[in-house]
Amino acid sequence: MIDIQNNIDDRGVSLHWVGIKDYTLQVVINNQHTIANVQLGVSLDATHKGIHMSRLSQLLQDFHVLNNETVIDLLNRSKELLESSTSSIIINTTYFRKKNAPVSGLSGTINYSINIFASLSSSNRSIYHSICVPITAVCPCSKAISSYGAHNQRGAIQITLSDIDIDDYDNVIRIIEKQASSCEVYSVLKRTDEKKVTEKAYENAKFVEDIVRDSIIALKPIYGCKLCSVECTNFESIHNHNAFAYYYENEKFNMIR
Amino acid sequence: MIDIQNNIDDRGVSLHWVGIKDYTLQVVINNQHTIANVQLGVSLDATHKGIHMSRLSQLLQDFHVLNNETVIDLLNRSKELLESSTSSIIINTTYFRKKNAPVSGLSGTINYSINIFASLSSSNRSIYHSICVPITAVCPCSKAISSYGAHNQRGAIQITLSDIDIDDYDNVIRIIEKQASSCEVYSVLKRTDEKKVTEKAYENAKFVEDIVRDSIIALKPIYGCKLCSVECTNFESIHNHNAFAYYYENEKFNMIR
Amino acid sequence: MIDIQNNIDDRGVSLHWVGIKDYTLQVVINNQHTIANVQLGVSLDATHKGIHMSRLSQLLQDFHVLNNETVIDLLNRSKELLESSTSSIIINTTYFRKKNAPVSGLSGTINYSINIFASLSSSNRSIYHSICVPITAVCPCSKAISSYGAHNQRGAIQITLSDIDIDDYDNVIRIIEKQASSCEVYSVLKRTDEKKVTEKAYENAKFVEDIVRDSIIALKPIYGCKLCSVECTNFESIHNHNAFAYYYENEKFNMIR
Amino acid sequence: MIDIQNNIDDRGVSLHWVGIKDYTLQVVINNQHTIANVQLGVSLDATHKGIHMSRLSQLLQDFHVLNNETVIDLLNRSKELLESSTSSIIINTTYFRKKNAPVSGLSGTINYSINIFASLSSSNRSIYHSICVPITAVCPCSKAISSYGAHNQRGAIQITLSDIDIDDYDNVIRIIEKQASSCEVYSVLKRTDEKKVTEKAYENAKFVEDIVRDSIIALKPIYGCKLCSVECTNFESIHNHNAFAYYYENEKFNMIR
Repeated sequence: MIDIQNNIDDRGVSLHWVGIKDYTLQVVINNQHTIANVQLGVSLDATHKGIHMSRLSQLLQDFHVLNNETVIDLLNRSKELLESSTSSIIINTTYFRKKNAPVSGLSGTINYSINIFASLSSSNRSIYHSICVPITAVCPCSKAISSYGAHNQRGAIQITLSDIDIDDYDNVIRIIEKQASSCEVYSVLKRTDEKKVTEKAYENAKFVEDIVRDSIIALKPIYGCKLCSVECTNFESIHNHNAFAYYYENEKFNMIR
Repeated sequence: MIDIQNNIDDRGVSLHWVGIKDYTLQVVINNQHTIANVQLGVSLDATHKGIHMSRLSQLLQDFHVLNNETVIDLLNRSKELLESSTSSIIINTTYFRKKNAPVSGLSGTINYSINIFASLSSSNRSIYHSICVPITAVCPCSKAISSYGAHNQRGAIQITLSDIDIDDYDNVIRIIEKQASSCEVYSVLKRTDEKKVTEKAYENAKFVEDIVRDSIIALKPIYGCKLCSVECTNFESIHNHNAFAYYYENEKFNMIR
Repeated sequence: MIDIQNNIDDRGVSLHWVGIKDYTLQVVINNQHTIANVQLGVSLDATHKGIHMSRLSQLLQDFHVLNNETVIDLLNRSKELLESSTSSIIINTTYFRKKNAPVSGLSGTINYSINIFASLSSSNRSIYHSICVPITAVCPCSKAISSYGAHNQRGAIQITLSDIDIDDYDNVIRIIEKQASSCEVYSVLKRTDEKKVTEKAYENAKFVEDIVRDSIIALKPIYGCKLCSVECTNFESIHNHNAFAYYYENEKFNMIR
Repeated sequence: MIDIQNNIDDRGVSLHWVGIKDYTLQVVINNQHTIANVQLGVSLDATHKGIHMSRLSQLLQDFHVLNNETVIDLLNRSKELLESSTSSIIINTTYFRKKNAPVSGLSGTINYSINIFASLSSSNRSIYHSICVPITAVCPCSKAISSYGAHNQRGAIQITLSDIDIDDYDNVIRIIEKQASSCEVYSVLKRTDEKKVTEKAYENAKFVEDIVRDSIIALKPIYGCKLCSVECTNFESIHNHNAFAYYYENEKFNMIR
């Protein structure tokens, strides 16, 4: 049977990344069961017509435990099986953490969106983890100028770090929730908790700019140059649009271009 | 050239709605230019194999001005051109309104999502308009139990009405914004406005349940049995999940089933 | 501490469904680990100001195994804990099935979107399962009129059934894939498989109308009046819009209104 | 009234981009009316606590005609009004083109997603346009190995170019549709057209890799180093996942990182 992908290509154009995307699979991350959406591919040199994509699907069949080692191993096997010089992956997944309400102590679960970007060649190996932390943000301007009340809203802080382990997720999330938010969010709050959360957030009013700066101040001493970028989006309660602030340390994560 | 769609079908199954969807087009609504996503189709009786879908695309080429008359006319022409007993359409579009800030008077524009559902047969003609109004919601419980502050968030009220005109949109939106919200949202707010909005919302704390009830109380005297359903979703600032309340008058809009 | 939700309401409006939505949690369905997005709520009678939403979040903390019994039990406990007459839930989740390639026999996994709608009152108990099955669809018109080739595309068949068990999912999916599609889709296909799949689909050309009718013909003898609705959307390869066909047996699933 | 944003900040952290996002507005592009979603912001130096976001909303009130000059002018005014060194914008919009069916000559309209990224500082001025072109893709492997038929699907080619004008959109789209696809897509196709389109696509089978390479080969002689990146995603008809190929000339558009 003809192998057209294996034909010689004479257009002289090599491609950086060719593969499959929107592939949904079950994974285990930090001993918790969840699902992931995967984009996996390899580079294609100028002389070959195509890659054998079914090999990528096959490799994903055996991919269950998700951590830095297994991701790099998957990239290594992709690179070898498809005889490519580079392989890369983007994984979107959902991570869960138990959290006790601040006064009642009742337990609840919060979900965090995770993006992992990894790339492997003979000369380079990179892995980035992007963690999205939902928080409460109270506006300092609204608080200062109003006789009572202050507008507040849910926000989402997106932290991107290089070369951390999945074991670091809990630490990063804890730091961001405690030090960068007006208050952290919870899934179960009784009235005693709601009073505490409301008052703490009000005492601790922060602009979207403060949230990004406080994230950097809190993470830099611990993660140093592993910190790539910090972004926060506040779903403004007084507007029908959102507010954002964005910082990048690593030019690769400069989304302004 | 063979016309397979015109073949006789012997499975004995008539279909309620067959056509095209995710069709994007430019429309004019209330003299404003916007774009719409359309799902348009007709019924198929048991004896025919298929409909001629290209006729639906053709009809949409001439559809520019969007109002009740043009929608019904489009359904009528669809029904006739495709020789069907019933034709139906769902249109999603974006509606804009100018709104002045409450103190500075500065002008800004707010966007509203609109869904129109219409159906036409020889015995029946229905048209429903669903308007989504973004608002501010301050939690009365949080306000009552906290020494200062109160959690608040953006909410979205979805109002479905039958047989209203597009001319009614402004009126429905104004009523909902004034009477059902803790405060309306704006796109331009200077500090004097932000103080006003913050304080007004705080004075006017409402649960998601209150917002739905106040919507009904405000709309019923004017729209009577034209009111089909009211739903509100609050994007809770202290949680990573949302709160909702839902009411239906017309069983067709019972989404609980 | 004041319990505002417990106040008496004098607006005289009862609400059909009040609760929490967009709540993400880990669940086990048919022994497989996956995640779900949940909307859970209860009715609110006219005399009470609000429901105690934190109780719903608390109940979800203990919800892990997902099947008809556990869903009804959750609704029962919601109803009792919140002293309501009715409780209802919508669950969106992802279901996985192993499937062997038709010639090589290689194993791959396909993901299916599932929606569950359930409601419980003293007089009524309903549970609906909606299963979305991705398939291949080859256009019979394109095949008949063209000297070679035929346009084809991925389609998605949405089947809604009442009172089935989660154990029925595999059976419904198998029937739909075998009897209603031009060909089923796979995640791993080697060249021998791709030849088989391409030829089988071409031999088996079906309009979106045929797919819905064949789904009904295949499911009715087995599921009878449990069949509520069938919808198919084809992501047309020759258009930038999609084609659809829709049938409902149960008026509750009439989306035309 | 206190101006908290104007306070001095002592954390020593400057931010690259601060502003508003998910702002929906009506715009005119190439004389056609459409709507856009905008993210607009400015840099914030280390010594200031916050930016005055309402000024960005105000500037957007006067933004109607969308082209390179008006975008740069908006950035210039943002930079000046907010006393910042850099301003940047991302605009997502929908562009429409009339297209005649290949045999019947009937007219139809196709919608194209557009992303514009622009940035302005005293030393730098950049503007990138990303155009998404829907196409038909027939698989050459499936065609070669099968006795009849060939799997095909809709694909989407995303082309990013720097420093082009909106007047270039039509040219870029025409080139991509003619030279990079198996066949272009249409919104109105009668049977004579469908035969032509089916056969042309079959004669012109292309892998996702071919589509990206042919895009580069077609665009490079005309646009030279203005070409930043090319990506194609094929919504595979025989899988429940998609295939993609990706090429970048400008490291800023390296999404692999």
